[in-house]
Amino acid sequence: MTKRAPLANWLNDTNDVVAVFLAAGQIPDLINLAGGLPAPDAWPVDQISELAGRVVRDYPTETLTYSPVPGLPYLRDILAARYSTENSPLTRDNVLITTGGAQGLDLIGKVLLEPGALIAAQSPAYLGALDAWRPRTPRYNPMKLETEGFDPKAAMTGAQFAYTVPNFSNPSGRLVPVAQRQQLIDAARDTGAWLVEDDPYGKLFYDGEALPSMLEMCGDGSPYAGPVIYLGTVSKELAPGLRIGWIIAAPEMIKALATAKQGSDMFSSGLCQMVAAKAFEEGVADTALPGILDLYRARRDALCAAMDEHLSDLMTWEKPSGGMFVWAKMKNPAISTDALMKAGLDQGVCISPSSVFDPEGTDQSSLRINFTLNTPEKLTEGVRRLAATIRQMA
Amino acid sequence: MTKRAPLANWLNDTNDVVAVFLAAGQIPDLINLAGGLPAPDAWPVDQISELAGRVVRDYPTETLTYSPVPGLPYLRDILAARYSTENSPLTRDNVLITTGGAQGLDLIGKVLLEPGALIAAQSPAYLGALDAWRPRTPRYNPMKLETEGFDPKAAMTGAQFAYTVPNFSNPSGRLVPVAQRQQLIDAARDTGAWLVEDDPYGKLFYDGEALPSMLEMCGDGSPYAGPVIYLGTVSKELAPGLRIGWIIAAPEMIKALATAKQGSDMFSSGLCQMVAAKAFEEGVADTALPGILDLYRARRDALCAAMDEHLSDLMTWEKPSGGMFVWAKMKNPAISTDALMKAGLDQGVCISPSSVFDPEGTDQSSLRINFTLNTPEKLTEGVRRLAATIRQMA
Repeated sequence: MTKRAPLANWLNDTNDVVAVFLAAGQIPDLINLAGGLPAPDAWPVDQISELAGRVVRDYPTETLTYSPVPGLPYLRDILAARYSTENSPLTRDNVLITTGGAQGLDLIGKVLLEPGALIAAQSPAYLGALDAWRPRTPRYNPMKLETEGFDPKAAMTGAQFAYTVPNFSNPSGRLVPVAQRQQLIDAARDTGAWLVEDDPYGKLFYDGEALPSMLEMCGDGSPYAGPVIYLGTVSKELAPGLRIGWIIAAPEMIKALATAKQGSDMFSSGLCQMVAAKAFEEGVADTALPGILDLYRARRDALCAAMDEHLSDLMTWEKPSGGMFVWAKMKNPAISTDALMKAGLDQGVCISPSSVFDPEGTDQSSLRINFTLNTPEKLTEGVRRLAATIRQMA
Repeated sequence: MTKRAPLANWLNDTNDVVAVFLAAGQIPDLINLAGGLPAPDAWPVDQISELAGRVVRDYPTETLTYSPVPGLPYLRDILAARYSTENSPLTRDNVLITTGGAQGLDLIGKVLLEPGALIAAQSPAYLGALDAWRPRTPRYNPMKLETEGFDPKAAMTGAQFAYTVPNFSNPSGRLVPVAQRQQLIDAARDTGAWLVEDDPYGKLFYDGEALPSMLEMCGDGSPYAGPVIYLGTVSKELAPGLRIGWIIAAPEMIKALATAKQGSDMFSSGLCQMVAAKAFEEGVADTALPGILDLYRARRDALCAAMDEHLSDLMTWEKPSGGMFVWAKMKNPAISTDALMKAGLDQGVCISPSSVFDPEGTDQSSLRINFTLNTPEKLTEGVRRLAATIRQMA
């Protein structure tokens, strides 16, 4: 029998931890602290239902036929206005609609990566970004922004782009300070690397005011044409099931990304685009936000209180001021968090080990805990189970 | 000033014809025979509106939260049942939901193409497939299926996959006969190449019965694990704005494609998946079909009658028995259809020249005319304008 033509090599670069992790959904009574899921409780279900029916009736052409590749002008204009500042005036030519924030990463890879090209990536890095770029077989220069003496210019030299999540990075939960944002912008200008600002958690500030985005920081009052490629999404403030995200960038970059999008899925659902447009226009997203913030703040506080009580002798962490995750490091370097994840499943708790956020797949020192999906009671019980698992392993 | 990091090389392989063509939408009173758009008149707008509102209300979790990467089990099961035959029994493990049929092509490229890999492609080839694979920089072996003595085995040797549109190929409108479908299957088995069956027009038979798909032809009664990778979509029978398509293939291939999808857009809109699932389950798609067929059959007849009257001394073509296009060849080889497209715009008519369907971009002998979008009156007037343009050029 003839052998079937082989699959592309990048498919071998998988991590069996991810498979274990996906199968965890089947375990009864498991407390899942591993994912990055928003809480369904906070969604404006009735309003989205009403909007979904209405936009098809009122805009059958926009919702049901082929849309322009870069998105419906109606939604692009709303987003341009939403993100425009005095320093960074935007038009629809700065905006591309994507099928979720995830597609933005895929398109950036297609447009900027030849095989073996270099990415300077904030480390640890978002798993989904590593997944998106794997088919382009890039190399990575890890950027440990919190290390003393970190030199953005050295890190970004020779890179096609730098990848950052300045607001409550996934997985580390870290907020990049304004001064370091400025250093990253300066380094992008000096080295010629593009600067990707992935911002799914930008509305999820629980303490204090939001920091300025690098997108707005690098405006100079003229129509935006800077090095920042900004990624946003409705997944955290409205609902991930809509699969609507956006990229804001220089018009030349938007044009190239649109060429890549044409060959990726042609355009994003007109129905979902119009639901998002109306949800912004009619304030549905903004009205839902305070409730989401209250819910998530209380859950973060509950998780951190339980961690203080049960884990402070076993791990170190910082309480994040926003986002969806706490990142914690094992005090005992002999305990691998890959092994901890597997052992935790037997105790009914699932966490994300650091190896999946490492482009090399080797870091087993830390873990990520999500606090948005579960109730305070479940978070507390999950932490108890995690502590028990570690004590058994030690 | 530092130069910004360069774009990937494949972005240079563009065709300025496509840009002209996209800008054509702005010309007033233009009769657009170039696109491949369905007629909005035939869509069940009220039913889709009702479904869209209802599925969010009744299934908030499935429609609004993160879905499994390969798609909602509910929709995968419906499609498995819809495509199962006695010879080819299917389960949800044979089905991946994609963001429109277009995404299926992108995923196949990611999973099967290393840089420079060979594709055996039915020629002329669908423009969207060429767009989807361009970032993977493949080589092409053109398959002219209608050429006497065509040898599928020779054409497919060394190829990762063969790409075919057996039902009313875009652009040629050609229906691949059953005997040749069998030869393609045999060649796939002999050479080890996968066999991509792209079937957006499979329901659009206007004369006579549908032919069996290669997917069903290659079943042997056991759970499907054959070389055919079948692509379907709701775009032609329901509405393209939903961006819901599917791939049916061997479970090992579905698994690899799901890995690629995870890094492409994570999952397709749950809202749109549930609308499609309910539209199938409640017969909305099947009920709308006879009306669509009557509408398109009448338009095809009107176009071909007008071509008989005005173009028979200038071009040769075959009347297609289905699909959305007539493919016609210039009798005068001195007239390039790239030039004809540009000249036509001044006369208020737009066609698609053959160069955009040629992986090499050089064939200027033929053109594609769409008959689904315009009324019979507009089609007739468009043909009159096209004939006048050619007579001016000769």
